[in-house]
Formats: sequence, structure tokens, C-alpha cells
Amino acid sequence: MTTQQLTEQIKKKKSFLCIGLDVDLNKIPKHLLKEEDPIFAFNKAIIDATHHLCVAYKPNTAFYEAYGLKGWKALEKTIMYLNVKHPEQFTIADAKRGDIGNTSTMYAKAFFEDLNFDSVTVAPYMGKDSIEPFLAFEDKHTIMLALTSNQGAFDFQTKKAEDKELYKQVLETSKSWTNSENLMYVVGATKAEYLADIRSIVPDSFLLVPGVGAQGGNLQDVCKYGMNDSIGLLINSSRGIIYASENEYFAEAAAEKARDLQAQMEAILSK
Amino acid sequence: MTTQQLTEQIKKKKSFLCIGLDVDLNKIPKHLLKEEDPIFAFNKAIIDATHHLCVAYKPNTAFYEAYGLKGWKALEKTIMYLNVKHPEQFTIADAKRGDIGNTSTMYAKAFFEDLNFDSVTVAPYMGKDSIEPFLAFEDKHTIMLALTSNQGAFDFQTKKAEDKELYKQVLETSKSWTNSENLMYVVGATKAEYLADIRSIVPDSFLLVPGVGAQGGNLQDVCKYGMNDSIGLLINSSRGIIYASENEYFAEAAAEKARDLQAQMEAILSK
Repeated sequence: MTTQQLTEQIKKKKSFLCIGLDVDLNKIPKHLLKEEDPIFAFNKAIIDATHHLCVAYKPNTAFYEAYGLKGWKALEKTIMYLNVKHPEQFTIADAKRGDIGNTSTMYAKAFFEDLNFDSVTVAPYMGKDSIEPFLAFEDKHTIMLALTSNQGAFDFQTKKAEDKELYKQVLETSKSWTNSENLMYVVGATKAEYLADIRSIVPDSFLLVPGVGAQGGNLQDVCKYGMNDSIGLLINSSRGIIYASENEYFAEAAAEKARDLQAQMEAILSK
Repeated sequence: MTTQQLTEQIKKKKSFLCIGLDVDLNKIPKHLLKEEDPIFAFNKAIIDATHHLCVAYKPNTAFYEAYGLKGWKALEKTIMYLNVKHPEQFTIADAKRGDIGNTSTMYAKAFFEDLNFDSVTVAPYMGKDSIEPFLAFEDKHTIMLALTSNQGAFDFQTKKAEDKELYKQVLETSKSWTNSENLMYVVGATKAEYLADIRSIVPDSFLLVPGVGAQGGNLQDVCKYGMNDSIGLLINSSRGIIYASENEYFAEAAAEKARDLQAQMEAILSK
């Protein structure tokens, strides 16, 4: 999917919501545990109930790897279901990968070819030759951590490096990399006040914004400082939506939470 | 395994060699492709031929994920084989993970509990609360990227942040984290000249050193500047050992390459 197509989807659905599929077997409704594949059963129900309200789904690979083979199978079934039933959805493998060149190529193949995700999240610490192998894939997107939503972001990301905070160095340096037009960036909603500065460095890139809801980020602030002419934002909510209820109507409850956010987004877009 | 036990193994085997199991189906001997699980068949043969020459094995997860379910299954079989047949080996999941707290906990469970690795590599970009969940596991080790072996290391890691290079900030800051005694660090052999500085910050920690061989790092230099009283080094070689030959005697060829490195290490240890 191209970023133009993503923006079209956002305008059509009046939503720039991304739903994080972070499935924890301790948190899903108990009756699903009887299913052959409880993780996929949960995801399918959530997707069926919410796909008209969002433009992207983001499984975090940690939650699947924690269940070993079963988990990886559930991830495969989830992305296949999305690609077959909802090809209009932008899919994000939230994997935060990054390694030396030939190894990054293997990760890129895993997520872009084997699983056929539209995008993958990566960590910038190892620099240019750890990210360019991802950028080499046509019509695929690489979403690099810039300023994350957690407290630990202040450990290194905001440290001044050569008179500029590390996350700004990361943003600026990455613009010179081959195929950098395939880059998007992670910027936590909990750091909305930094968005104006970030937009001055990467005015056109899409930003994936986690941290609205459970982590306390504010949607209005994010949009005020982060939105561009192509919208340029994907706001992620995971726990706040998918664990809205533990009873048999969990999918409807999730849809209600998604609807709340979509309605707020529609109001912002119509301004 | 404790670091004391690791040092004992090193002294007993006169080797601080770690063998990287980065299995690429395009590079393994063709006759193995007929096997039901070619990746595991390759790993088993390499392990059987080399286990007396090394103290650690390090599968890089990228190479397994690239083959989807089959790959994950091969990884499970490999670590199980190591844990059952060679419990004296220190096992490293080279995964370079790192995420916000609850997600890092899921990764830690995946590698420490589900797969039962002794250690996992992590990326520091997201700071303290992304790493501490790994450190919370008793008798498990978390190996954090400090100064990596690739060219991209100079993009951010060596940038001066508050008058100190980022990788030094990473080393120093991490010492204050809860359970930091469970930390080890990745330092590329291609950056041997930095090792004296690194040792002044983390004198007692084990360093995992990739980049000897294929990437051009020098073993003597690494030992000169990086070794401490408990040895404190694990030198990794992957491609240089496991792809020594493509014919039916590939495992013997790998053992020969491992023997070369082990002999060099024995000479250094006996000085």
C-alpha cells in the first residue's frame, strides 16, 4: 500500500485509528480459551467488529513469540486474514527489529515477504546499514523509533548529541538514507509537545503514535502539532480497545471504544 | 547459568568461542535440503562437531523468523537440543529486542521461559524501563548493544551526547538499573580500539564480541584491551565457521575453523 492510498483510506473512513493486536491469553475472555486457536479467534472477532472504524492493525510480535509455535501460527493466520478479507487495511508488524545488514535483510524478508505485512517497526541504534535493507523493499514501509512513549525515552533519546537531541539526529540523519521515502516514525502521544519540532524535520512522513489511552497521551494535542496535509498520523490504541470487556460481548465493547476514538477523529478532520 | 560457571567453562575448555547459528538455506550443503528439517539437521551437525571447542551458541532469530513456522520450529528444536545434550553451553538468543515495559516482559518470557535461553540480546534505545523487565529474571542474562560491529555504529552510537559518546552513556546509565548485575554488552571486534575505554566503565561485565573473521575484527587486539580477570569475553564467529564448506564434510570443516580460533584463544589464555 502506498502512503497516498493510506491517506485516501483515512479520508474515506474519517479515521486514522490503528488498533494494536497485543493478545495476552490472561486478558482475553475466558470462553475463547476453549477454541483451537484462542489468539486468532480473539483477533478475528476484534477485526470483524472494528475494521470499518480503523485504517490499520498492528500486532506486536512480542505477544505472539511469547506463545512459541502456537503464537507464531496465530500471527500468520491473523495477517493472512487481514490480507485476504481486508486488503484495504494498512498492516504493521510491531517488531522493533534492527541488526547488521545481512541480518536485517532476513528480518525484512520475514515480515515483508513471508508474512506480507505492509510495514515493520525498527530501532535506529545500529544506524544506516541496519535500516536500509528494510527500505529496499518497494511499496513497503519502515517505521523507525524516534521518540517513544515510555519513561525510558528520556534516558537516551532526548540527550543532546552534538547540540541536538538524539531523536532529532535520528530523524535528520535518516532522511539521507537510500529509499528514505519509505520511512515513517514512531512518536509517542505522551510526548505531544515535541511534535512541532519533529514536524519541522519530517514534514511529510507518516507518524505512528502510540500512547493514546492507557499510557495517557492526548489525541487533540497530537493532532494539533502532528497533523499535515495528508493527515500523516496513525494513532494506535491497543489495550484501551481490545480489552474493553472480558465477557462474551468483548468484540462489541471493543468496537464501541474504537467508535469513540473514530468519532473524535472525524470531528478533528471535519474542522 | 551464572557468569562464574561461564568463566569456569572457559577455563576448562580453554576457549571463549561463541558460535553463531545463522542458518541460511541458500548457504547450507545441498544434500541437507532433503531432510525433514534442514535447519535443525544443519545445527545438530555443527553442534555435534564443535561443542568441545566453544562455550556458547548464538542463534540469530532473524534467520529463523525468515522461514516462518518452520524456522521457529527449528529454533525450538535447536535450543531444546542444546539444553538437553549440552547444558554446559551458554545459549544466546540474538534477538536485539526492546519495547515498552509490559511488551518487554512478553519478549523476556518468550526467550527465557518458553525457549529457555540463558540470555538474549537487547537494544538500548528505549531506555531503562524497556530493559529492566529482562533483568528481572534470575540466572538469566541480558546482553545490551553498546558499540556494534557495523559501519552504522558511527551514525549515532559514537555521537557525543552531553560530552560523552552515546555508547558510553548507554554503558554508564545501565549500571544504575535494577538487577544490572545481569547485564552483558555487545561490543564489535571491529572497534577493538574502543575496548580500553569500555573496560574502564564496565570492568567486570562479560562482553559479547561479534565481528571477528568475516567482518575483519582482530582477536589479539580484542583480548589485549577487553579481557578481565574472569576472562569476560565471548568472541562470536558465525559465517566464518558454519559455512566453512558446502560439501558433505561441512561439519568437520566447521570444527576445523572452530579449532583454529580455539587454539588462538588457548595460546592467549596460557600467557
